Amino acid sequence: MSSSTSTRNFDIKDPSLAADGRRRIEWAAREMPVLRQIRERFAADKPLAGIRMSVCAHVTTETANLALTFQAGGADAVLCASNPLSTQDDVAAALVDAGIPVFAIKGEDGETYDKHIHAVIAHKPQIVIDDGADVVTTLHKQYPELLSGIIGGTEETTTGVIRERAMEADGVLKFPIIAVNDADTKHFFDNRYGTGQSTIDGILRATNILLAGKTAVVAGYGWCGKGIAMRLRGMGAQVIVTEINPVRALEAAMDGFTVLKMVDAAPRADLIVTATGNINAVDRDSFEVMKDGAIMANSGHFNSELNLKALEEMAGEGRRTLRPFVEEFKVGGKSLIVLGEGRLINLASAEGHPASVMDMSFANQALAAGYLVSQAKTLEPRVYGVPVEIDHEIARLKLVSMNIDIDELTEDQHRYLTSWQ
Amino acid sequence: MSSSTSTRNFDIKDPSLAADGRRRIEWAAREMPVLRQIRERFAADKPLAGIRMSVCAHVTTETANLALTFQAGGADAVLCASNPLSTQDDVAAALVDAGIPVFAIKGEDGETYDKHIHAVIAHKPQIVIDDGADVVTTLHKQYPELLSGIIGGTEETTTGVIRERAMEADGVLKFPIIAVNDADTKHFFDNRYGTGQSTIDGILRATNILLAGKTAVVAGYGWCGKGIAMRLRGMGAQVIVTEINPVRALEAAMDGFTVLKMVDAAPRADLIVTATGNINAVDRDSFEVMKDGAIMANSGHFNSELNLKALEEMAGEGRRTLRPFVEEFKVGGKSLIVLGEGRLINLASAEGHPASVMDMSFANQALAAGYLVSQAKTLEPRVYGVPVEIDHEIARLKLVSMNIDIDELTEDQHRYLTSWQ
Amino acid sequence: MSSSTSTRNFDIKDPSLAADGRRRIEWAAREMPVLRQIRERFAADKPLAGIRMSVCAHVTTETANLALTFQAGGADAVLCASNPLSTQDDVAAALVDAGIPVFAIKGEDGETYDKHIHAVIAHKPQIVIDDGADVVTTLHKQYPELLSGIIGGTEETTTGVIRERAMEADGVLKFPIIAVNDADTKHFFDNRYGTGQSTIDGILRATNILLAGKTAVVAGYGWCGKGIAMRLRGMGAQVIVTEINPVRALEAAMDGFTVLKMVDAAPRADLIVTATGNINAVDRDSFEVMKDGAIMANSGHFNSELNLKALEEMAGEGRRTLRPFVEEFKVGGKSLIVLGEGRLINLASAEGHPASVMDMSFANQALAAGYLVSQAKTLEPRVYGVPVEIDHEIARLKLVSMNIDIDELTEDQHRYLTSWQ
Amino acid sequence: MSSSTSTRNFDIKDPSLAADGRRRIEWAAREMPVLRQIRERFAADKPLAGIRMSVCAHVTTETANLALTFQAGGADAVLCASNPLSTQDDVAAALVDAGIPVFAIKGEDGETYDKHIHAVIAHKPQIVIDDGADVVTTLHKQYPELLSGIIGGTEETTTGVIRERAMEADGVLKFPIIAVNDADTKHFFDNRYGTGQSTIDGILRATNILLAGKTAVVAGYGWCGKGIAMRLRGMGAQVIVTEINPVRALEAAMDGFTVLKMVDAAPRADLIVTATGNINAVDRDSFEVMKDGAIMANSGHFNSELNLKALEEMAGEGRRTLRPFVEEFKVGGKSLIVLGEGRLINLASAEGHPASVMDMSFANQALAAGYLVSQAKTLEPRVYGVPVEIDHEIARLKLVSMNIDIDELTEDQHRYLTSWQ
Repeated sequence: MSSSTSTRNFDIKDPSLAADGRRRIEWAAREMPVLRQIRERFAADKPLAGIRMSVCAHVTTETANLALTFQAGGADAVLCASNPLSTQDDVAAALVDAGIPVFAIKGEDGETYDKHIHAVIAHKPQIVIDDGADVVTTLHKQYPELLSGIIGGTEETTTGVIRERAMEADGVLKFPIIAVNDADTKHFFDNRYGTGQSTIDGILRATNILLAGKTAVVAGYGWCGKGIAMRLRGMGAQVIVTEINPVRALEAAMDGFTVLKMVDAAPRADLIVTATGNINAVDRDSFEVMKDGAIMANSGHFNSELNLKALEEMAGEGRRTLRPFVEEFKVGGKSLIVLGEGRLINLASAEGHPASVMDMSFANQALAAGYLVSQAKTLEPRVYGVPVEIDHEIARLKLVSMNIDIDELTEDQHRYLTSWQ
Repeated sequence: MSSSTSTRNFDIKDPSLAADGRRRIEWAAREMPVLRQIRERFAADKPLAGIRMSVCAHVTTETANLALTFQAGGADAVLCASNPLSTQDDVAAALVDAGIPVFAIKGEDGETYDKHIHAVIAHKPQIVIDDGADVVTTLHKQYPELLSGIIGGTEETTTGVIRERAMEADGVLKFPIIAVNDADTKHFFDNRYGTGQSTIDGILRATNILLAGKTAVVAGYGWCGKGIAMRLRGMGAQVIVTEINPVRALEAAMDGFTVLKMVDAAPRADLIVTATGNINAVDRDSFEVMKDGAIMANSGHFNSELNLKALEEMAGEGRRTLRPFVEEFKVGGKSLIVLGEGRLINLASAEGHPASVMDMSFANQALAAGYLVSQAKTLEPRVYGVPVEIDHEIARLKLVSMNIDIDELTEDQHRYLTSWQ
Repeated sequence: MSSSTSTRNFDIKDPSLAADGRRRIEWAAREMPVLRQIRERFAADKPLAGIRMSVCAHVTTETANLALTFQAGGADAVLCASNPLSTQDDVAAALVDAGIPVFAIKGEDGETYDKHIHAVIAHKPQIVIDDGADVVTTLHKQYPELLSGIIGGTEETTTGVIRERAMEADGVLKFPIIAVNDADTKHFFDNRYGTGQSTIDGILRATNILLAGKTAVVAGYGWCGKGIAMRLRGMGAQVIVTEINPVRALEAAMDGFTVLKMVDAAPRADLIVTATGNINAVDRDSFEVMKDGAIMANSGHFNSELNLKALEEMAGEGRRTLRPFVEEFKVGGKSLIVLGEGRLINLASAEGHPASVMDMSFANQALAAGYLVSQAKTLEPRVYGVPVEIDHEIARLKLVSMNIDIDELTEDQHRYLTSWQ
Repeated sequence: MSSSTSTRNFDIKDPSLAADGRRRIEWAAREMPVLRQIRERFAADKPLAGIRMSVCAHVTTETANLALTFQAGGADAVLCASNPLSTQDDVAAALVDAGIPVFAIKGEDGETYDKHIHAVIAHKPQIVIDDGADVVTTLHKQYPELLSGIIGGTEETTTGVIRERAMEADGVLKFPIIAVNDADTKHFFDNRYGTGQSTIDGILRATNILLAGKTAVVAGYGWCGKGIAMRLRGMGAQVIVTEINPVRALEAAMDGFTVLKMVDAAPRADLIVTATGNINAVDRDSFEVMKDGAIMANSGHFNSELNLKALEEMAGEGRRTLRPFVEEFKVGGKSLIVLGEGRLINLASAEGHPASVMDMSFANQALAAGYLVSQAKTLEPRVYGVPVEIDHEIARLKLVSMNIDIDELTEDQHRYLTSWQ
């Protein structure tokens, strides 16, 4: 079906899955009270009226709620996948049914994935919502003629922001980017709590191993790595952290984790999880010293954190699938296990972040898109953080949804804080 | 297919699933090093040669490894399910293929479930391996003529042991029972670490909710409840405990949990998990005061810990399935959610205990069965604990498999401990 | 002053400290609500009327509240120290002032310590309250003529119970002992929570080191060791556990701790804490491989868990006090630190268990003493546990004091639990 | 003695305490390996040669090591206390003996405290090292003639930085300030780990209460509050957090803490600890609803976080000291307890931050002072952060001292991170 639909204005697996998708989108909506309030406001104010938007994201129930929020705000949005494995085909069908073109099929090959990127670019976006900077970099490299029409973009991931900051540093970035990832209400909740829990969830669904008593190595102690380490400990594992940043390495040690170089940690590992935003966080030298039966998973954006090319060379023919998402590589008489082909494990074998986490991230996306439109004249082609007012507004909406009432400064206290005498 | 096979010497869903089942049994075997060593010893020594065994258990990959261990030891074993929802049909097929008759079909109705209990009793067991005491009580109530031929039984669960202790107290128990659940290497590892993790796993698979920031109520602070509370906290939830035992209630409070009566805890709950071994741990009065959207799951053996009958009456027509294992009950304008029909959530929506946990429990089952046979003459019709030597032997085998080397008493230390002067 | 008073019916440091002691005893009483209720009941019922009691205990504010409870119950009690370093001289003075003879001086030498043991034995006790079994063993070895007059004794510590069980096994025990340590309301709260916190407290007062990021080794994973390991982790340390019992070793590993032999753990240790109830838990082989600056403390009853004799030999002249309770031993160019002379660190450099912990232990002591008197005719010369009714009663009184209300079994639930059908 | 020395060039309690102070300064130096390496470098390079420095800090063993580092670097430094209760008189004596004038006496009254501030200002500093901004604000308000001679200052605390940022915002700040508190190696380690542990330590020394099972309220969830909440939980308390910042409030909730308004939290509190940097975090409305026996302590810089004036009015005559650092206020029939007069509890009743924490903070102070001198020409009268190079250098030195070796970027990885293609 996919090939036959690829010339139409969407490309999905099966439109007949729409009803299932819609029910699941509604289940997610229950856990997205902040976005729900924003959607209601957007429906009234239409801050995105007539704006063409190209959205590149994991095509999940939560993203669907974001896309519907853009639509409620008046936007003309199209959607492609930011990862070939994460697409939920029923959600894609439900969105198409709701009038939002989607170009994404779960398990699509690299060629199709690229074709879909180009399909959303063909929409001539004024606003780009990106997740890993694939659309933004493709636009800059292959579609220079479209750049002047672009008001700005937002970026969801650390990985994407790193790339866009490098573009800014090289002087090639041509439109403003809001680094949604830098919002406190994004990275505290998404990277730390979301990735922390959903990485555990993905590993358990793929393997059903007991974590208590296991030695787990977490590569990277950024917000994602902190979340994963915290949750692995919370499940009873002994956790070792590896880092390249000395301040973070120290923080991990002070948090009670063992800190080692990867090649020294690998021989102790029952489980290794990567969250570095870099390539080859686990490389040939570590594969060589790992234990028989050791399991590896990746939680970072790209599937290059484990050097799978090296592992494939080492294993040669000695490679087979043991269970869904569980692949064995025979290396020097021992068995090394890779989960979900080294792609983000929470999306590969589980359901991605819980909706209530994405609620915070996507509330930032929604308000950031509105901000870009309203500030179109004043922003320069730079990477910006999310304005602190948006951050606080989102936190406040979230607390309201949790029935949490917090203190406010008294006049005396406010005066005290702003006085230096 | 089931109906046509029910008169043969097994009753399963589909024999053609055997290959899948075998591969998954092997995956589990990787995480069951203790049972593997016992199986090797059994294969050499045949301690169960010719013994007819009726095994009632969750028909999972781990149970399959236990059944194969009995077979290796020379036993003539047959198997039925201890829960209608927990049967893995491919595993059943693989066991039948390996020559072990199985009577179990996932999702079987109550009538079929009972029929299967009777089918394994028709095997005229000398040893009964039970999980919840259904076989043991049925034997006593309906098959008095078989009781004299029974050497003894083992019981896996707290719930079953409670029933058998009541039988002993009433003077009706007719053969010895080894309460496997009482072994330290069983309840520490199975009830606490196994149930703790797999309950979380089942809840996440069913709902994909974020646990961090949620208020979760755990009913019961026995070994299972402790494990669940510990893991919920480890995932970032605020945990409230309810108990009826004052010592356990105090222990929960000292462990930093809020302790309340259920009816006082229910209004705060985003999630309630029961692990009491009793009926109606959450009852009508609590349903009435719960929040809109509150989720309930059960982790105890029987599906009677949540008073679903009362809930059904309160909801009437207002009842629908939102996702697999997620059912909504509309009660007085609010939506209450029950997971997995109130059956053990780790088996209903996940894969039950991790294999490495069941390794410990089933090593106890295997050695206890051997012990029953070897002590057939000396044991009385009572409920016995697992001999401490078995407990220590299992712990030692497990430590060996984890490459953990521990201290031994020096002669001076041994002398010191046994001297009072 | 001490020498001049030693022939009188008490022997303390300075009677003029009584007012200070009384104020501190009252501060402790605030945190001892259970004992307070028992004291009120004793004052009314006089269950110990005229009973001669010899109490050997740490002479602290909490023990003072116990002694006053005995007095309220009508007993004629005298008191000596169970540890030469733990006596609070102002408390001793306050008790003497209140009419309870005390034989204890902080820092008393071994000879004086022994003399004081004999002094309380000279009281010809009918009930012995012991802490480490020094009075009980001295009575059996040197005062056989007094044994027939003794109704029974209670024992506070694991160490003492081990000795008394050995006496029972050897057939030499001549009166019943209630092992207070075995009560859940004792060992959960005292050994685990009390020793856990107060050991941290003692170490911090002695050293003021930062625990976060340190590698700490806990020898022994009994209730005390569990509490210490839990609290060290709670303060951010990386914790390694050593054990000789395979089940406990496994439990420690499953709780997420690294488990090693002591000689393998010692080279990694910034801090070692012993809680084994045995001698030489840290011995010469470990001293040899420890890091420069490593710190050792003991939390077990006797100061023989660290082999200080070996350490002294190794250090020779290279020994000096760095701060109060902090002694340096120079061994092979490195500096090893011993806190509080290897005596229980929570008593040596801090204030012992918090009063609210001792409240639970001493409520057991008080009710056990009453139980001994009431059951004088029926008990045999054996080591008994605390009756479960006492345990539950104490837990209930404690929950009341914490304003915690717990569920009670409904009739249906009670019937369910006691039925096997 | 103090009065007779006040006209000389120092003002301390007792110079004869120098030997004790020196020994304790050396004990602290063991735990300050980073500052030790900097001191060695300073001794060689003399980056502060001839610079007049006025240092306002808690006069503790760790500050002594900082002062000796300044001296080693060639500075002409004088020292006063930043808190009347925190001075260690033996340390002051040791510094005077080492040639560093000190103006500080433990327990000095407000008048003397102010006189000492003026005494260090009379030194006509070129560099000011401040802790709470008292010297900086006094200079601006009362010594305008000295401002032009000042190269710059550093500020240790959040509280001080808030005041100095307010000065900058008002356009009155006349010299550059390095906000040492903003360095990751300062606030992660000092505010979080240091304040976290030492606040617990101070509370335990003052009260010896058991934290397990207690309900503790932490006001403020900044770095200090996070550390305190984490450690209270680590000791077994149930922790409630109050906040005025919605993002932090959310973070606390997601970390599993109950979040409430103070007036709603107060009735549940056994213990309240403030760390807000603001006044009246606990005020009259909360005192009114607190439980009998509730304990309050402050961990923030100034003793105004608890509104003691209101509490004194409410108590009137009903006020007495129960133990050192423990004061009772009788309010409406109940007893409210305030520790350490509401001053920073870790300094009032314990020994302040552990040396290894201050090592990080003071390494920042030392390198920041050198940076100010080297950049004297280029810095403007603004509040600056610590340069990231200093932060990383300190983290690296610390990891070296902990024998922790971390990964470094490979060339491929470095290229990947800096490339956007």
